[in-house]
Amino acid sequence: MSESDAKGLWSGRFSEATDAFVAAFSASEHYDRRLYREDIRGSRAHARMLADCGIISADDGAAIDAGLQAIEAEIEAGGFPWDPALEDVHMNIEARLTDRIGEAGKRLHTGRSRNDQIATDIRLWLRTVIDGNLALLRRFQAGLVDLAEREADTVMPGFTHLQVAQPVSFGHHMLAWYEMLVRDESRLHDVRRRANEMPLGSAALAGTTFPIDRDQTCAALGFDAPTRNSLDAVSDRDFAIEFVSAAALTMTHLSRMAEELVIWASPLTGFIDLPDRFCTGSSIMPQKKNPDVAELVRGKSARVQGALHTLLTLMKGQPLAYNRDNQEDKEPLFDAADALRDSLRAFADMVPALTVNRGRTRAAAREGFATATDLADYLVRQGVAFRDAHEIVGRAVAYGVAEGRDLADLSLAELQGFSTAIGEDVFGVLTLEGSLAARDHTGGTAPAQVRRQVAAARRRLGQDSDR
Amino acid sequence: MSESDAKGLWSGRFSEATDAFVAAFSASEHYDRRLYREDIRGSRAHARMLADCGIISADDGAAIDAGLQAIEAEIEAGGFPWDPALEDVHMNIEARLTDRIGEAGKRLHTGRSRNDQIATDIRLWLRTVIDGNLALLRRFQAGLVDLAEREADTVMPGFTHLQVAQPVSFGHHMLAWYEMLVRDESRLHDVRRRANEMPLGSAALAGTTFPIDRDQTCAALGFDAPTRNSLDAVSDRDFAIEFVSAAALTMTHLSRMAEELVIWASPLTGFIDLPDRFCTGSSIMPQKKNPDVAELVRGKSARVQGALHTLLTLMKGQPLAYNRDNQEDKEPLFDAADALRDSLRAFADMVPALTVNRGRTRAAAREGFATATDLADYLVRQGVAFRDAHEIVGRAVAYGVAEGRDLADLSLAELQGFSTAIGEDVFGVLTLEGSLAARDHTGGTAPAQVRRQVAAARRRLGQDSDR
Amino acid sequence: MSESDAKGLWSGRFSEATDAFVAAFSASEHYDRRLYREDIRGSRAHARMLADCGIISADDGAAIDAGLQAIEAEIEAGGFPWDPALEDVHMNIEARLTDRIGEAGKRLHTGRSRNDQIATDIRLWLRTVIDGNLALLRRFQAGLVDLAEREADTVMPGFTHLQVAQPVSFGHHMLAWYEMLVRDESRLHDVRRRANEMPLGSAALAGTTFPIDRDQTCAALGFDAPTRNSLDAVSDRDFAIEFVSAAALTMTHLSRMAEELVIWASPLTGFIDLPDRFCTGSSIMPQKKNPDVAELVRGKSARVQGALHTLLTLMKGQPLAYNRDNQEDKEPLFDAADALRDSLRAFADMVPALTVNRGRTRAAAREGFATATDLADYLVRQGVAFRDAHEIVGRAVAYGVAEGRDLADLSLAELQGFSTAIGEDVFGVLTLEGSLAARDHTGGTAPAQVRRQVAAARRRLGQDSDR
Amino acid sequence: MSESDAKGLWSGRFSEATDAFVAAFSASEHYDRRLYREDIRGSRAHARMLADCGIISADDGAAIDAGLQAIEAEIEAGGFPWDPALEDVHMNIEARLTDRIGEAGKRLHTGRSRNDQIATDIRLWLRTVIDGNLALLRRFQAGLVDLAEREADTVMPGFTHLQVAQPVSFGHHMLAWYEMLVRDESRLHDVRRRANEMPLGSAALAGTTFPIDRDQTCAALGFDAPTRNSLDAVSDRDFAIEFVSAAALTMTHLSRMAEELVIWASPLTGFIDLPDRFCTGSSIMPQKKNPDVAELVRGKSARVQGALHTLLTLMKGQPLAYNRDNQEDKEPLFDAADALRDSLRAFADMVPALTVNRGRTRAAAREGFATATDLADYLVRQGVAFRDAHEIVGRAVAYGVAEGRDLADLSLAELQGFSTAIGEDVFGVLTLEGSLAARDHTGGTAPAQVRRQVAAARRRLGQDSDR
Repeated sequence: MSESDAKGLWSGRFSEATDAFVAAFSASEHYDRRLYREDIRGSRAHARMLADCGIISADDGAAIDAGLQAIEAEIEAGGFPWDPALEDVHMNIEARLTDRIGEAGKRLHTGRSRNDQIATDIRLWLRTVIDGNLALLRRFQAGLVDLAEREADTVMPGFTHLQVAQPVSFGHHMLAWYEMLVRDESRLHDVRRRANEMPLGSAALAGTTFPIDRDQTCAALGFDAPTRNSLDAVSDRDFAIEFVSAAALTMTHLSRMAEELVIWASPLTGFIDLPDRFCTGSSIMPQKKNPDVAELVRGKSARVQGALHTLLTLMKGQPLAYNRDNQEDKEPLFDAADALRDSLRAFADMVPALTVNRGRTRAAAREGFATATDLADYLVRQGVAFRDAHEIVGRAVAYGVAEGRDLADLSLAELQGFSTAIGEDVFGVLTLEGSLAARDHTGGTAPAQVRRQVAAARRRLGQDSDR
Repeated sequence: MSESDAKGLWSGRFSEATDAFVAAFSASEHYDRRLYREDIRGSRAHARMLADCGIISADDGAAIDAGLQAIEAEIEAGGFPWDPALEDVHMNIEARLTDRIGEAGKRLHTGRSRNDQIATDIRLWLRTVIDGNLALLRRFQAGLVDLAEREADTVMPGFTHLQVAQPVSFGHHMLAWYEMLVRDESRLHDVRRRANEMPLGSAALAGTTFPIDRDQTCAALGFDAPTRNSLDAVSDRDFAIEFVSAAALTMTHLSRMAEELVIWASPLTGFIDLPDRFCTGSSIMPQKKNPDVAELVRGKSARVQGALHTLLTLMKGQPLAYNRDNQEDKEPLFDAADALRDSLRAFADMVPALTVNRGRTRAAAREGFATATDLADYLVRQGVAFRDAHEIVGRAVAYGVAEGRDLADLSLAELQGFSTAIGEDVFGVLTLEGSLAARDHTGGTAPAQVRRQVAAARRRLGQDSDR
Repeated sequence: MSESDAKGLWSGRFSEATDAFVAAFSASEHYDRRLYREDIRGSRAHARMLADCGIISADDGAAIDAGLQAIEAEIEAGGFPWDPALEDVHMNIEARLTDRIGEAGKRLHTGRSRNDQIATDIRLWLRTVIDGNLALLRRFQAGLVDLAEREADTVMPGFTHLQVAQPVSFGHHMLAWYEMLVRDESRLHDVRRRANEMPLGSAALAGTTFPIDRDQTCAALGFDAPTRNSLDAVSDRDFAIEFVSAAALTMTHLSRMAEELVIWASPLTGFIDLPDRFCTGSSIMPQKKNPDVAELVRGKSARVQGALHTLLTLMKGQPLAYNRDNQEDKEPLFDAADALRDSLRAFADMVPALTVNRGRTRAAAREGFATATDLADYLVRQGVAFRDAHEIVGRAVAYGVAEGRDLADLSLAELQGFSTAIGEDVFGVLTLEGSLAARDHTGGTAPAQVRRQVAAARRRLGQDSDR
Repeated sequence: MSESDAKGLWSGRFSEATDAFVAAFSASEHYDRRLYREDIRGSRAHARMLADCGIISADDGAAIDAGLQAIEAEIEAGGFPWDPALEDVHMNIEARLTDRIGEAGKRLHTGRSRNDQIATDIRLWLRTVIDGNLALLRRFQAGLVDLAEREADTVMPGFTHLQVAQPVSFGHHMLAWYEMLVRDESRLHDVRRRANEMPLGSAALAGTTFPIDRDQTCAALGFDAPTRNSLDAVSDRDFAIEFVSAAALTMTHLSRMAEELVIWASPLTGFIDLPDRFCTGSSIMPQKKNPDVAELVRGKSARVQGALHTLLTLMKGQPLAYNRDNQEDKEPLFDAADALRDSLRAFADMVPALTVNRGRTRAAAREGFATATDLADYLVRQGVAFRDAHEIVGRAVAYGVAEGRDLADLSLAELQGFSTAIGEDVFGVLTLEGSLAARDHTGGTAPAQVRRQVAAARRRLGQDSDR
């Protein structure tokens, strides 16, 4: 164990060394080392500011800057001597700095605390994570829009209660998924905006007695503003909770898509084929080709919800300011971020590559009396009140179920047995294509509307990518 | 059971009546009747649009409008014959309408479905709920700002790990709470913005074959835009989840305040007194005066988290479009909304009415070596590296603990035993007021900063209330 | 507001009346009145014990007993003047008692507190709830066993990843559900056992100075033993959490069954028909017959999970002993109990009434190469190593997919093209019935095994109902 | 990438290789390798059974057994070539076996699937985990009993609502903690009992066509019985959920202890000292000695709740039988198990090592009118009805608050001003020791009762350790 162990941090006040199990129990270096880039970036900005404000000498400032750059290179080259006895990423780097540059290293922590340091590190890290997810959301959206255009005219059964409801365009369905992702994107932008404030300078909880310049570090680190209250700044984990909330909702969306992909890829429906490269087989059943990616994403949605539960419960009832409980914020946050990123990437790759079996979707839409509503609407146009039309069609359907025939397969005479308002022209509204084309208003499933929404989405995706 | 029971809705297709237990099991009227105002408002806008578009006659449109107004009055007068056999708020009102105005009532449901109707109702309701909570947040913020100003100079111990850390201003602490609420307000604005789109016109899932004008209903109902995809519009519950997420985070904030209020009202600290009118006693212990309001709010924070869990898990893995599972969305949403509103109101009333026992907070700040960091900072200003200064002060504290004396109570000679860099002027930095005043930068706890933040908050509260 | 308001409870020590909003905010009478029967039962046992121990007079004891009986009758007749100003069920009943019998009523609360009273009430209530659920579990199990026997020979596709895996017996599938419920029953017994200890006598938190006889009240109330530590007894809510944990797991089981019922009732599979009386229709689509009961149960599973979240988070980090947070324990507990009871009842009624469309299940099993594993096993029996057999069959399946034919539809020559180890007898193992019958060991899907498990289940259900 | 990649498993049926990202996304080897010991144990039992039943040859059986033993040694020596391309622990070991022993290795998977294999592995692993936690619970219980005996006579304030309620024995408080752990232990025994059944032999979902002997493997692996339904056996994760439920409740208990330890270690109370070896300091504040272990345990309780959420939500709505979602069961299970084990160990080490500052606890009990209930009970014994006595004492307390004096500090004359029933002997009941000693019944806080419970606990701990 290094001499410069964590104990060194507070050895003056303590009369015995930390218990070995406690040291291991409380160490976070094995997961928070992931923040090394942000930690170094924050420390460099802090040191430069200390020097510019005359709190440390220019020479010390320069030595620290060079030392930290060298350490970053050392870490990225895999040669950094990570030491759990130094507790966390901060002390590992600071101790290494002092090993390398001596005395000046001991001046880096002037006017700050690990409390504002970690809050700054996580926010820097989260900003990058959000930007990565925004790009993935965009890519997935674009893939869905292409697929929607390709399948704008493809008829499939629309379901409610997993019962056949009305025919819809497969492209329309893909645009429903697109709309979910648009909201997800909007939420991430909001999270980013609120997260992008700088805690650095709040020190342990009350600010510092040194004449620091928070505007300088704020600008250097690309934050929108310094936080306005030191107690809040070191206690606050809203940014983590907000991000994981947004992630949980996006994952819930993906889990709904996953459920549909699993159903559609089942031989029960045979609606779609997934490329083999996105599927796996069975160790025992030679015929299996499983939609594992969809299932894993559906499973991971539970995991991100669990992370949200953890974070909310973690903060519940905590008095201000920093409590060690908060160390437990990082693993759920990291885990949720990884699950979100990987799931988005998997779907952005896979979904646009699916093939629709148009014959199967069309055949399924012909079962289940999918155009019954069209018949009711037809009757309304003949002057029947909607509630009465509904009742009339209900009876016709019951007859069809008993006969084993769809409405379109009944004769005009049979149909007129239910209502004399029915004329020869009824068969036009009972076709799948007629039903689809008739829903031609904003948000409706008519292929013309699908193409209009595709165009609007293309504009949005193009426009935004310009900014 | 009324003849006009829910069965009437689909009697054509069914061969036996609904099982009585199933009818009770699936009814939602007992809780969704709460949405009657929104339901009627939406139906009136829908009927007017149907008439304006020539889908129903102007006479029918007028009869429906008058009938719905009369029903609203009837409900508010308590005379409406709510009937669980009619399943939900929608069918109760529609059936009553037909009872009252006859044939025309049967035409109201033309071109819509309960799927888009309920999604519209909830969004209308939620908009009002959000506005109410925004007002409560503002009122609570204003109360905290007043309290912060009143107690700007009050010294209390700042805690980390519930150990005395550094002295802080009580007003500064109140402004930390204020900052949390500012974020909460910002989040609610975002939720409102995304929720304020109109599903009406999406019908069951695919749109409708009637030539509806969604822009008209959208304008009439005060929505920003019609939704762009009918499948998404009837399947989406993001608005509910987003609201409950925001509510859960606000409640988590309130739970943290509650924890502190409970600790501060305990005789263990005696930091504050709560007015008797906000406290309750014990059925057995005659001396008790309990901070029940704070405890209940802390408890209710768990409940809102539970509602969030319910909603996320409810939606997880649901295929599009509407599934009956979604009926279970309302009770957790209503419950979370009530808990948030009541908790905000309780705290907005109570917290500004608390009294600080300034003697107790000051005395507590004098224990626990609260100015140790100030001594370390002093040494740094004498040229000692921060890490070395930290070590020196640690030893001085260990000596003080053994002696049972605070740093300020040690003699200069004793202090100089730890570092010769210490001079007579050290005692200035060891006072609580000196420590406080020295943290004089944005976000710091110096009373001057507190007053600056109070002024900024006042501007913000005033400005925004103008918009 | 009644003069005998809650304030009366602690008026001596307080200088102002409770704020009206706070009174409403903290009242629990509107939901905890549900415990009146248990509250009265506990009070009667307590009063009798007080009298028997000479702590109150025999006359007072008799007056209290008669008064409480009268109050119970009054409540059940609907004539009890519930008053939220009296805060909760306990004070409503005690105040009413004193109204009725005077002075003696004021002696009832001797040697107890609402803290031990409510803990006793909930445990008594929970015991009854558990017993009701145990009976429902049994009834549902019995229904499944009957259905399993009826459909023992029915072939359906067994799924993994919702892909056709191997043929299974429908009866076998029903027994899988039965096994889940057996574990659920076992868990409820464990919960009941641990919950059945008596807190009464723990008073506020430390016990009482009166010479009470806890063994007497324990016996009178049917508890197994008095609790052993007063602090724990008033702080503990394990019984509620344990029950809701068990309920959440049972509901998770029901949600899995629900998912399958929804898929099986969809025209996509057409595996089963649900009686009309368990289904509902659509307000717009006349043809719909929806499996709402299954969907609602699936939805309610989320709600019970939410209740579990609430309770665990509620207790997290609470110091001993009683805190007012705990008042929030009852609504989630009641809600979870109701959801469990109703869901079990709905499924116990509906599931055994379903009809299997044997033709549809058999046809579906013939798709998806369900007997591929049988072919691999056949090859193993010819001496091929399993991994090689798996590879061989995989190639045969790929050929079948390309040809659009099942393995059983390939010619012997075609099959021998993949392995010369294949002989004429291979077609025996490729039939659905052959595949099913071959899995004839404990737990296997062979109809003979299904009948054996049905018989074992019948013995278990019969045996246990004897005890 | 190794040639013997996972693709090898199902290469026959697939026409393209797995996407590299998908391979990484779906691999589990990096965490499920933790199950290698159980996997090998299960495979050895399976192979021996296959040989004994004549399904594979005795020579193959022996070769497999030797090969697996060698692999176990290789893994423990750190020399095993773990390969993520082989997806999971099962295929890594099987592929390595075939590398080592050739052809025979390809026969190991006869008559089983990864579905029953993983279910068996986890149950074996969980059994060991439970046994470890049971031992830790016992050790912690024993430490608490010792501490309870040591501090049986120590007076501290008992709290409700964090207000001083009544004096209690510190030892009594420790026994409250002990009682929580006794229930935790009981729950773990129940979980273990239900988990200890063997899925092996269920194969993919339907059992196998080979004449396996499940009783043999069951006995070899120490399970109580083979599972009775193959579909259930591969779908069921109740054991994981049940364990994490029990863990979450235990962690909730630990979080409550943690909250109290943090409060008691704060200078606000100064009730206890924790040894330095269990504390850590601050990077900035030299005086800090923080109760980090307690805070981390409190934090980890949130994490275990999150794992429970994940598992319940993961299983919700899954159709039978195995779905790939289930792969996500392991990380939350492992994480919860680790958090429980470490937290129990940390507290079992630390708590018995704390020192009580008896002067501080006694002084605190003297504030807050802790003996007010004793005065009310005294009045009852003089014949005053309890409700009236409560009111009288309430007024006396209000007077004491105004005067700044405790009840025991009022003169007899002052006390008699509130009730003439008060006599000279009242001061006996107003002492802390008198109050404590008077609660002398089962569960009460009298030191005599504490000692009785300590003796009972000792018997229980001794007895049980004999079995």
